[in-house]
Amino acid sequence: MLPTTEELLIALKGILSQDQVSINQTILEQHSKDESYHTPSLPDIVVFPATTEEVSNILKLASGFKVPVIPFGRGTSLEGHVIPYKKGITIDFSLMNKVLEIREQDFLVKVQPGVTRTQLNKELKKYGLFFSVDPGADATLGGMAATNASGTTSVRYGVMRDQVRDLEVVLADGTVIHTGSLAEKSSSGLHLNGLFVGSEGTLGCFTELTLRVYGIPEYIMAARASFPTVHDAVSAVVSILSAGIPIARVELVDEQSMKQVNLFSDTDYQVKPTLFLEFHGNKAGLKQDVEFMKEIVADCQCEGIEFETDQAALNRLWEARHNLAYAYIHGYPDKKMMTTDVCLPISELAGAIEHAREELNKLGLTGGIVGHVGDGNFHTVLMIDTNNSEEIKKAEEFNESIVLHALERGGTCTGEHGVGVGKQKYQEREHGEALKVMEKIKMALDPENLMNPNKIMKF
Amino acid sequence: MLPTTEELLIALKGILSQDQVSINQTILEQHSKDESYHTPSLPDIVVFPATTEEVSNILKLASGFKVPVIPFGRGTSLEGHVIPYKKGITIDFSLMNKVLEIREQDFLVKVQPGVTRTQLNKELKKYGLFFSVDPGADATLGGMAATNASGTTSVRYGVMRDQVRDLEVVLADGTVIHTGSLAEKSSSGLHLNGLFVGSEGTLGCFTELTLRVYGIPEYIMAARASFPTVHDAVSAVVSILSAGIPIARVELVDEQSMKQVNLFSDTDYQVKPTLFLEFHGNKAGLKQDVEFMKEIVADCQCEGIEFETDQAALNRLWEARHNLAYAYIHGYPDKKMMTTDVCLPISELAGAIEHAREELNKLGLTGGIVGHVGDGNFHTVLMIDTNNSEEIKKAEEFNESIVLHALERGGTCTGEHGVGVGKQKYQEREHGEALKVMEKIKMALDPENLMNPNKIMKF
Ligand SMILES: Cc1cc2nc3c(=O)[nH]c(=O)nc-3n(C[C@H](O)[C@H](O)[C@H](O)COP(=O)(O)OP(=O)(O)OC[C@H]3O[C@@H](n4cnc5c(N)ncnc54)[C@H](O)[C@@H]3O)c2cc1C
Ligand SMILES: Cc1cc2nc3c(=O)[nH]c(=O)nc-3n(C[C@H](O)[C@H](O)[C@H](O)COP(=O)(O)OP(=O)(O)OC[C@H]3O[C@@H](n4cnc5c(N)ncnc54)[C@H](O)[C@@H]3O)c2cc1C
Repeated sequence: MLPTTEELLIALKGILSQDQVSINQTILEQHSKDESYHTPSLPDIVVFPATTEEVSNILKLASGFKVPVIPFGRGTSLEGHVIPYKKGITIDFSLMNKVLEIREQDFLVKVQPGVTRTQLNKELKKYGLFFSVDPGADATLGGMAATNASGTTSVRYGVMRDQVRDLEVVLADGTVIHTGSLAEKSSSGLHLNGLFVGSEGTLGCFTELTLRVYGIPEYIMAARASFPTVHDAVSAVVSILSAGIPIARVELVDEQSMKQVNLFSDTDYQVKPTLFLEFHGNKAGLKQDVEFMKEIVADCQCEGIEFETDQAALNRLWEARHNLAYAYIHGYPDKKMMTTDVCLPISELAGAIEHAREELNKLGLTGGIVGHVGDGNFHTVLMIDTNNSEEIKKAEEFNESIVLHALERGGTCTGEHGVGVGKQKYQEREHGEALKVMEKIKMALDPENLMNPNKIMKF
Repeated sequence: MLPTTEELLIALKGILSQDQVSINQTILEQHSKDESYHTPSLPDIVVFPATTEEVSNILKLASGFKVPVIPFGRGTSLEGHVIPYKKGITIDFSLMNKVLEIREQDFLVKVQPGVTRTQLNKELKKYGLFFSVDPGADATLGGMAATNASGTTSVRYGVMRDQVRDLEVVLADGTVIHTGSLAEKSSSGLHLNGLFVGSEGTLGCFTELTLRVYGIPEYIMAARASFPTVHDAVSAVVSILSAGIPIARVELVDEQSMKQVNLFSDTDYQVKPTLFLEFHGNKAGLKQDVEFMKEIVADCQCEGIEFETDQAALNRLWEARHNLAYAYIHGYPDKKMMTTDVCLPISELAGAIEHAREELNKLGLTGGIVGHVGDGNFHTVLMIDTNNSEEIKKAEEFNESIVLHALERGGTCTGEHGVGVGKQKYQEREHGEALKVMEKIKMALDPENLMNPNKIMKF
């Protein structure tokens, strides 16, 4: 029989200090939702462990009581990942927020899961290093690893999975394991790093992460290039990639979203489909690359290109891009965000974006299109009134047509946000028989289905 | 009860044509061994499927009979991976050797598992593309994915796991799954690609691989730099990496091995600890990088550096490096090769190589040290007389001391060759409780333990 909340509370206070366990209504509400349109639902209790041992004790206790456990970073996910639809204990990692070790020569850093990406970068800057993955929210590294997050620089430096060298993980039964080593490559044993990254809290809690970091490049050059149509902008990206020009960032922002950027960031960028580009390297090499790139974009009807090399202008440019999702959120205070997140082979990208625009028009929805187009990943950002069931239905219909269009072309339903509950309905369509393999793995590692139940897989 | 070989033969001939099933002694012997010192052992039967469906039928049959199955690429592995110590059916993929599709714009290629890396590169060259992973043997892509192979270019382009976008896998019970998609990144479902890569045939047979390929760089520059000591050479590598110079290849060859290179490849390179280096990029950028690099190696006592830019000279240089293992094999025709394969964080590399040299001297063994030093991975190549149990014992003692030294410093027992049977004894030491997780996954996917049994894990 499941314990009452009262019983759980007493038990948890036996292994944690008073102020590490909460049933305060505000705290419960903060942990009932993410930053999307998904319906909130309260956990029974929120705990704030400070050590791996405490996490292990919590999980032992929860598995003894057969109570669900939901790991929680900053709740910035977008598919209902952290919402405790089956109630239980939410583990908030905000007290585990230390950068534990920086190994400069090895380009490695060891952090606790509650460290956020901006916190880490502030620390790394002192060493001339940076951490590459930069989602549009100041997420925790634990949450980013659990969703396999990516960002504007993934076209050059890879996604979260590419940065994780080792995870300390507490499994459902409280066992502590390490999924990797400090070595840059390994063929030893079955590869667990890749499996745990992106597992959305369904296989265990990450309590320590060893991550790859990079030297801040000698020279950085950024540009904004505007085009008459989204199609022209995407063609330019495909040509730049085909030419082998090593871009570090390439982001597409459509007309609608450029308006939102200008409103929110107080910029006066041209309201046209725009590419935000960045190049890293040495000065001589970049000069040659950029000359070549200019020819390519000109061939793609580029209507204007502006370069920035000084740090302040660079920061302004990328801040504007990073704040784009928040620009929408603040622009529509009574609405909630739903964003599509498909990723396709690059040759299919222009067609997919055109299809998205047509579907928007057909359904009479307002939405902006933005994307990490160098990876073949784009988002359609919709702001919806969650009290209007008709609007939700339309938006879900739209989302589905975007997903099916991508799946038919070898793409994925989610390039970076993850499955949570929102993308569950596409899992069988995308993975087929492989979904059963995932379920077998989940059952082998968490037989009682206590770790963030009913996320990714439906049970 | 297990079937007799006769019964198996009849059953297999029911689902394959006559010439796809063999119990010919020569064929059995070819499939009884790899290219290392591990003791051979014959399979019962060798089969040569031509389609995924045939592979699926073979596995259904084998699982019905509860007979072990050993996938076989070219048998170039080095830790007894393909040796059928538990007998059974060896599946040789040599008939599945077609390049199925080249998607230029997407930098993707789809191949059957029996395609070898040189075969693939010959095909890709027509498109101005290349496949980056280049182990020192002309292995199959199926075998390379199954061992998570790497090579000289991994410091820049990554290891086999980084190239695999999707695998078609036939599981132990004959089910066919896909582990990924064509999208460059995905956060959908549990990540199976990374888990199956490096699984050494213990989780299923790969019947199709979708792989990342790259554009042949605009400009390539290679160099040989010699140093008074191995330590100086490694220091130079650490400094080059720290300076952020993007090297595409950096290989260390010690004095002993330079002798072997000259003998085998008919070169007259200086017999000194040498770095073989390569840089990819545009002409202007490389020029600046190389000037900087020259200063760095000079600071590390470099005694001479020779550059090559024309294609013939480049090919000669890398052929010499690639043939190094064979140089040893041919140099000692009555002996067999044992090679250590540890990988460590780069800051520990110089110390580990020094330790290896000291241990060699202490045990009175002759061995050459070579390595993909940019990744922190090095090999000590020993040629041993497998009829001399004293010599085997000494070599194993040596191997163990190298492995333990690496594990104590956050390294791995195998950077690229894999576990097979040779590195099994270190699995618990390296992975601790995580080994149990690997065992649970294996049991969940192959409950009868029929897929390449007793490899990686001990059962
Ligand atoms: C405005 C905005 C912009 C965004 N832009 C991007 C973007 O560009 N790219 C991108 O990839 N995402 C983006 N996102 C989504 C979100 O930021 C990411 O999914 C992020 O990785 C979530 O991190 P978090 O710390 O908030 O985790 P949470 O939302 O708290 O949790 C996310 C998942 O991780 C699990 N989890 C959290 N911590 C741990 C832990 N220690 N151990 C195990 N599991 C854990 C949770 O159970 C949950 O399943 C954006 C979100 C917003 C609101
Ligand atoms: C001279 C020499 C130099 C080498 N240099 C390197 C090097 O630089 N880097 C490196 O990484 N390795 C190196 N190796 C080791 C070897 O080349 C690699 O391990 C290679 O990946 C093995 O490929 P193969 O096709 O010969 O596979 P095999 O040896 O036939 O098989 C290897 C493993 O893969 C499995 N397997 C094969 N095909 C499939 C399939 N279709 N589906 C599922 N499982 C399969 C087998 O069961 C086995 O476990 C070297 C070997 C030699 C002899």
